[in-house]
Amino acid sequence: MWAELDAVGRAPSGGYRRFAWTPIDRSLREWFAGAAQLRGLDVVVDRAGNQWAWWGEPDAATAAGRPGIVTGSHLDSVPDGGAFDGPLGVVSALAAIDALRQDGFTPDRPIGVVNFADEEGARFGVACAGSRLLTGVLDPDRARGLTDADGIRLGTAAAEAGLAVEHWGRDDETLRRVGGFVELHVEQGRGLIDLGAPLAVASKTWAHGRWRVDLPGEANHAGTTRLLDRRDPMLGYARLVLAARESAQRNDAVATCGKVRVHPNGVNAIPSLVTGWFDARGADPNGVLAVVAELRALAQVEGATMTEESWTAETAFDSHLRARVLDALNECDPPAGLVASEDGAPVTDRVPVLATGAGHDAGILGAAGIPTAMIFVRNPTGISHSPAEFAEREDCLIGVRGLAAVLRSLTG
Amino acid sequence: MWAELDAVGRAPSGGYRRFAWTPIDRSLREWFAGAAQLRGLDVVVDRAGNQWAWWGEPDAATAAGRPGIVTGSHLDSVPDGGAFDGPLGVVSALAAIDALRQDGFTPDRPIGVVNFADEEGARFGVACAGSRLLTGVLDPDRARGLTDADGIRLGTAAAEAGLAVEHWGRDDETLRRVGGFVELHVEQGRGLIDLGAPLAVASKTWAHGRWRVDLPGEANHAGTTRLLDRRDPMLGYARLVLAARESAQRNDAVATCGKVRVHPNGVNAIPSLVTGWFDARGADPNGVLAVVAELRALAQVEGATMTEESWTAETAFDSHLRARVLDALNECDPPAGLVASEDGAPVTDRVPVLATGAGHDAGILGAAGIPTAMIFVRNPTGISHSPAEFAEREDCLIGVRGLAAVLRSLTG
Repeated sequence: MWAELDAVGRAPSGGYRRFAWTPIDRSLREWFAGAAQLRGLDVVVDRAGNQWAWWGEPDAATAAGRPGIVTGSHLDSVPDGGAFDGPLGVVSALAAIDALRQDGFTPDRPIGVVNFADEEGARFGVACAGSRLLTGVLDPDRARGLTDADGIRLGTAAAEAGLAVEHWGRDDETLRRVGGFVELHVEQGRGLIDLGAPLAVASKTWAHGRWRVDLPGEANHAGTTRLLDRRDPMLGYARLVLAARESAQRNDAVATCGKVRVHPNGVNAIPSLVTGWFDARGADPNGVLAVVAELRALAQVEGATMTEESWTAETAFDSHLRARVLDALNECDPPAGLVASEDGAPVTDRVPVLATGAGHDAGILGAAGIPTAMIFVRNPTGISHSPAEFAEREDCLIGVRGLAAVLRSLTG
Repeated sequence: MWAELDAVGRAPSGGYRRFAWTPIDRSLREWFAGAAQLRGLDVVVDRAGNQWAWWGEPDAATAAGRPGIVTGSHLDSVPDGGAFDGPLGVVSALAAIDALRQDGFTPDRPIGVVNFADEEGARFGVACAGSRLLTGVLDPDRARGLTDADGIRLGTAAAEAGLAVEHWGRDDETLRRVGGFVELHVEQGRGLIDLGAPLAVASKTWAHGRWRVDLPGEANHAGTTRLLDRRDPMLGYARLVLAARESAQRNDAVATCGKVRVHPNGVNAIPSLVTGWFDARGADPNGVLAVVAELRALAQVEGATMTEESWTAETAFDSHLRARVLDALNECDPPAGLVASEDGAPVTDRVPVLATGAGHDAGILGAAGIPTAMIFVRNPTGISHSPAEFAEREDCLIGVRGLAAVLRSLTG
């Protein structure tokens, strides 16, 4: 499966440019449908465009009070992202089903594999758009009106991809089928490197959000306009970038200015508009909100407008499901938490529990009341959203074995 | 003529996106060739792609010691530039020839109208690329290797447009035909507004240049990477932007950061590379060089590389030609410098002389030893490189009349 995905949406950087509702995204969705079909799984696409591949009859099981257990992740990427963020969860889900079947296991409730649409929000600006639409936390009108850099609306792009965008809104018919969701994901930090463990289970997702700041200026000639006659928004942007870092440091949060758009973006023209995007997160939601309040005040001083593009409160994963996932991982044979030190003696034998600064569809589903859990696979570079993102084959296999054990435990 | 050009390359902003060696540029070049043909002018395209429309036989005249007098400007634009920067000089040149012919005037040496290629450098980063190639100050290898935002080489784009790019280099055959060059251009500052005059003649072009700063970072996840683990080049860029303004203020120069490119430019990704462009100019070249030296030192501290993309020393226009242009403007009937105040009494009756902070092909030709002069037409907004750039019809007509008088004086 990994080899089949390798070339899809690969950029010259070695990273991936897999953006929602593009031809590359269509290829990935077709690949998913094909992989599901190959396994005899029934693929249902919900109104938000998320693909669900079912082993079993989810509606009958739900009616009988045994809704399905779902695993999976997403296939889209950030610009020049890595190969693992998203696809590892989807591929591991399918591989775990293969493993369960090879063992002759028959689940007592349906198992679903999901490919969430538009998780990264790289094109239209809202992360987890597929799960947010599904759970109704993203307003359908707002979603339809989101535009990409070329001014194309999400509503238009998704309609062209065949979605009934006029029926967007919370989708209880789909949600009802999901009795629990376990997302496996490559770790995006250095937690497992420091712990020396191949897998972890998530405790909570930090509060996190995105804001867009539009700084208007007056386009003019870079040579002939006196400094005192200028309204140059690049200066205000620079002040905001530095203030964001300083404020994040002081408030024990993280803030990032990773995206900027300048108009007209000419060497010898003072910009008429600079649009900057800020991402802020933290273990303490109050710290994040303090950073945002400080930036909002500064934006006002700069004559800029600051718009919230998304906000997700801190989300603790379901403690009961987390305990069952941990038990299953620790009890599988050999235990997924077992790590040998160089001299062969075990250095840790329990799967650790970690908080995460990254947002995930699992967090969105959890906030909507569905029991969710996450399993992280060690990333030896500690780097993600970059071509350097990585997971060792051995750790990936421990992940698949662990996920299979979890599914067996939850559906056996 | 103005109406014919109005729609070509117009962007939704109301400004123009006319970039060198694009289909829009080809339309403009075809328009120029057609307008020349309509007037019976012979069009010659030099190796650098500049178009020369001749009234008379330049080679015979040059051999006889009477090389031509050339006027004109360029048709390309900055991103979302105005309608006047460039085209006003080309259209006025053709209109001045029409006016001279209507008067039954026959020049005693050839008159040429030039459309310089790639004056703004909006696509490949080097301003006045056409005249720099012509005069040999732009190295052909470097020029061929310049790339646009999509990685397309100038050498490739120009070759596809039919140029013999392998023969680039100083073009004496073309230069020899030019006994003098007078460029009419919309003013790009507020000088003529303050003076209350419709036209001015240029004294000199400020020293000016462009530098590119590449700030490398490490792409990583905006949520999961601790601040102390980050190598975020956006911070260094912000510090450079603020330092450039502060340094320019202190050194009595101007500095502008109008263009930036971020890789991968994702909201939730720390950039792996920020490339910023700086434009610096000033009445005192030492002030400009001081700004550049300070930025270079700061770039080094930030681990960035700073590359000079162009540098043009202060260029005084030919004093003899300037005097003749001034005389012709002041002596035409009515004098081009004559301005009536609101009560009808003249407020100024001499055409003023102004320095310019903008670079022009006239400056490049002047530096190469060709006598050059410039005429500026008042811009009532004082704004250029913007859709707000403007010239009143009445001032444009004074410009055409003045330019015709200058050509008559120089070739009569």
